[in-house]
Amino acid sequence: MDLKEKKISSEEIYKGKIIDVYKDKVLCPNGHESYREYVTHCKASCVMAMLPNGKFILEKQYRYPYDEVIYEFPAGKCDGNEDPLNTAKRELEEETGYVANKLVYLGEIYPSCAYTNEIIYCYFASELEKGKQHLDENEAVEVYEYSLEELNNLVKIGEIKDAKTLTCLVFLNAKGLLNK
Amino acid sequence: MDLKEKKISSEEIYKGKIIDVYKDKVLCPNGHESYREYVTHCKASCVMAMLPNGKFILEKQYRYPYDEVIYEFPAGKCDGNEDPLNTAKRELEEETGYVANKLVYLGEIYPSCAYTNEIIYCYFASELEKGKQHLDENEAVEVYEYSLEELNNLVKIGEIKDAKTLTCLVFLNAKGLLNK
Repeated sequence: MDLKEKKISSEEIYKGKIIDVYKDKVLCPNGHESYREYVTHCKASCVMAMLPNGKFILEKQYRYPYDEVIYEFPAGKCDGNEDPLNTAKRELEEETGYVANKLVYLGEIYPSCAYTNEIIYCYFASELEKGKQHLDENEAVEVYEYSLEELNNLVKIGEIKDAKTLTCLVFLNAKGLLNK
Repeated sequence: MDLKEKKISSEEIYKGKIIDVYKDKVLCPNGHESYREYVTHCKASCVMAMLPNGKFILEKQYRYPYDEVIYEFPAGKCDGNEDPLNTAKRELEEETGYVANKLVYLGEIYPSCAYTNEIIYCYFASELEKGKQHLDENEAVEVYEYSLEELNNLVKIGEIKDAKTLTCLVFLNAKGLLNK
């Protein structure tokens, strides 16, 4: 079956700092015309970082669209053409003060495929050394440490809702990284 | 630590069919003013459905923002104030033709917490009966069946990138639903 939609025209709705917004006219596989509204967003990285004590770094951050403080693994946007691996390493250090000497690629995720083109690259970091936290201006983050068992329990009771954070856990499991 | 940001004012950028876009001026915990650009999107549901043969329903759909055909569990937007449980049941039937006689709530996810307020409610469906597929106009979906082992392998080799689909797998694991 041909599933692909073809672009007929594109309207720029908004050029923002973090997101741009477009409305495109498309030709559907059934021959009908339709519209697709979507956001463009730069690439991002997320890092599941294991401390020497075997615990993992989890942050709490306020997220404005939800008006809620939520749990997340450290993450951030790629600066320009920055390699997502570097982004993961840089964001971990900025947000938590830890420098990772080992980073393993876990996988990439499409957070909400119907209306954003964002790709989040996920990494597993280990061999951490304590450096110095240096948050961006206007960034406020609380840093916690949890064992894998505690993380799994937080998932079970519905305390972890952030997609990239949950996805790192499924990648870690699928790749069997802790069993090696 | 106070992490909350307070709304000072809100600018409506775009009122669309699927997404609305806003730019709000906020007061950060450090006393500085900043801006938050974000999308509002209705609630949605995702359903991990197990067939009588023990396999799971996975779809392939073209996603315009990525210009790519990707794997996803059946999912869709809540109609108005529709209960997400009904959405899960309805979308499964519309997209695959299967009627679920049992649905168990898995959890909710925030797909990209920095710039969308979307919540996706995830369910585990079983006791399926074959009905009739009736896709929305302009919707094109291919339906596949995979064992849990095959799904985990698709995750491992990077073939499943959709966040809600990956997250259902971590919820299923955390809740131990297949071990009961």
